[in-house]
Amino acid sequence: MERCEALATCTEEPGRITRPFATDAMRCAHRHVEEWMRSAGMTVRRDNIGNLRGRYEGTGRGTLLLGSHLDSVRDAGRYDGPLGVMVAIAAVQSLHDHGRSLPFGLEVLAFADEEGARFGTTYLGSRALAGQLGADDLQRTDKDGIPMADAIRAFGGDPSRIADDAISREGLLGYCEVHIEQGPVLELSGLPVGVVRAIAGQDRMVVTFTGEAGHAGTVPMDRRRDALVVAAMFVIAVEHEARSHEGVVATVGRLEVKPCGTNVIPGEVGLSVDVRHANDAVRLESVQRIMAGAHALAEGRGLTASVRPVAENAAAACSPRMIELLTEAAGGDVPQLVSGAGHDAVVMSSLTDIGMLFVRCKGGVSHNPAESVSAEDVGVTIDGLPRFLDRPSRG
Amino acid sequence: MERCEALATCTEEPGRITRPFATDAMRCAHRHVEEWMRSAGMTVRRDNIGNLRGRYEGTGRGTLLLGSHLDSVRDAGRYDGPLGVMVAIAAVQSLHDHGRSLPFGLEVLAFADEEGARFGTTYLGSRALAGQLGADDLQRTDKDGIPMADAIRAFGGDPSRIADDAISREGLLGYCEVHIEQGPVLELSGLPVGVVRAIAGQDRMVVTFTGEAGHAGTVPMDRRRDALVVAAMFVIAVEHEARSHEGVVATVGRLEVKPCGTNVIPGEVGLSVDVRHANDAVRLESVQRIMAGAHALAEGRGLTASVRPVAENAAAACSPRMIELLTEAAGGDVPQLVSGAGHDAVVMSSLTDIGMLFVRCKGGVSHNPAESVSAEDVGVTIDGLPRFLDRPSRG
Repeated sequence: MERCEALATCTEEPGRITRPFATDAMRCAHRHVEEWMRSAGMTVRRDNIGNLRGRYEGTGRGTLLLGSHLDSVRDAGRYDGPLGVMVAIAAVQSLHDHGRSLPFGLEVLAFADEEGARFGTTYLGSRALAGQLGADDLQRTDKDGIPMADAIRAFGGDPSRIADDAISREGLLGYCEVHIEQGPVLELSGLPVGVVRAIAGQDRMVVTFTGEAGHAGTVPMDRRRDALVVAAMFVIAVEHEARSHEGVVATVGRLEVKPCGTNVIPGEVGLSVDVRHANDAVRLESVQRIMAGAHALAEGRGLTASVRPVAENAAAACSPRMIELLTEAAGGDVPQLVSGAGHDAVVMSSLTDIGMLFVRCKGGVSHNPAESVSAEDVGVTIDGLPRFLDRPSRG
Repeated sequence: MERCEALATCTEEPGRITRPFATDAMRCAHRHVEEWMRSAGMTVRRDNIGNLRGRYEGTGRGTLLLGSHLDSVRDAGRYDGPLGVMVAIAAVQSLHDHGRSLPFGLEVLAFADEEGARFGTTYLGSRALAGQLGADDLQRTDKDGIPMADAIRAFGGDPSRIADDAISREGLLGYCEVHIEQGPVLELSGLPVGVVRAIAGQDRMVVTFTGEAGHAGTVPMDRRRDALVVAAMFVIAVEHEARSHEGVVATVGRLEVKPCGTNVIPGEVGLSVDVRHANDAVRLESVQRIMAGAHALAEGRGLTASVRPVAENAAAACSPRMIELLTEAAGGDVPQLVSGAGHDAVVMSSLTDIGMLFVRCKGGVSHNPAESVSAEDVGVTIDGLPRFLDRPSRG
């Protein structure tokens, strides 16, 4: 936790934590993390996308990957990302302090970008390792118009050689990530840690309702085609869909009214819909009902609805063996959770078995300076991870 | 209508009609209108606030006021305001052409500001005549920081002498205003003109719902305090209130979500409510129910609601005698309408009896370049107004 505090000083904005991809703030974080990795007996290298990778050799072949991300959203908390890297380094430090080697190598991955704050595209670090980064990604520009390829070069990488950094599936034993829960379930259960069963799949859509703007004083109620009234019905229908189907979470987070004048009947409303579930089939059924609802509500009032899919991510299941091993390591009596948020583990699941351990966070708050975890809860994780590392060797 | 076309060229923005208070665009409009007033046999003066006032003397004492406003909203249509001034000048022109005088004087008022596009305060022109302009109005600044008093001086008026322009109630026979309907009722009835029974009173409020922002993926549905879901229920409740009480119109025209991210549960929603009715008691009862509903909906979900009144205007009834005379003049078989929009007549009702004649407009559209009236319908008005002017003398 002291190390998370130290990393918090690596920021683009004094007084707030803002540490985007390939910035001086990230360079500052790398100086700290590289030193901590070396002290834990690791050899360290930075790959072309800018991931910091520490290797602790074992007595046999095979590699277990541990990690999380070092970048942050704007005005972030201290723990979302860094905590997983720090706990992994602490586990290796513990082996190193006892002069122990495992029957397999360990690689601690400190990913360069998960949040996507700079280029609006997520998982850059893990996607590079999974061989999923494309030329279109490299052409993206940040808010100052700097192309990603130039940002990578300025940070010391060679964008043309990113493919060389991809990890081969062969010999991989799995990928394990520790992360704050970012939700209230552990706190409500009174438990310090939980094991992730699956990372929810996600659909994002933009829905636009088009009616007719008009004068708020002169158009009679029964002659209106008010886009906000229909959008309001839709917001309620989205919530109802989620509340009436176990495990579905659905959110309208953005909503924009046009023309947005106190004395003008809304003619158009655009809004975002975010739907998540651990089971892709359940999610897709909910999305179908939500989309059908948008059209039905619009038609019922003589409006039109357009639904534009923005992104879809399939659910990623954690491997039963990783779940079992993490559960044992954490003391056996820990709840299984579905992660509603995405993580680097989603991408890593294309390479190897994944497992995740969640740490209770205060109020379920994340992406916020108020993000908080207790030293005791982190202690449970730091004690548990070495126990976990001892298991794959016996499995 | 040709004159409305000519005035459309007096604008701040080439290609659009934007003619705010005390601008070069207004100066351009004054050059035209002053010439047309003089041609119709009127003596013309511009008062301190910038109203253009044309007087046509009669054979006896007393004055009948006719008028409307020359200013416009941004990107306006041709007729909202100017049509009433043009029809009034045409009626006087008709008397002048026939060498006739009425038993009372006529004063055509071309108001300097009704829309409030420049200083965000409405009815500047008519309020000056009614003695309702205060020092606080003169201190208001436009978007460039120019105080209203300076704008008035630059336009040729003396802000310290505005009170001298107030009209005495004595000798006033009434105020009559012709205006486009700005609504669809006449078009739906297939009738060219209508007589206004009353101008609706209006309440404007800002309602803020405060819940709790959170991660759209990680906070379970039953743990959310989503401000947008409650705001959506409220939008529907506002519409329901209006639909279930005859003559009430209620509109949520603005709605703003915070933080407004696709993956963030809305923590706060601010919205505007506009409620109108011809009967103040009916309106106030609706407002009470709407305000109580905001609090009840918020409490039901563990949120808070704050309701801030922004403005309240009482309804203004047209005088029964003016309604009768205008109805006769328009051919007897005309509908009586409630004006949902405010007009200079609201302010003039503090000085004298008011009457208004509405002209059908295409699609009920106003405050829009697509604003349109037919030559035939305007013809009905231009024929009717001189008949109306003959009645008060006989009454």
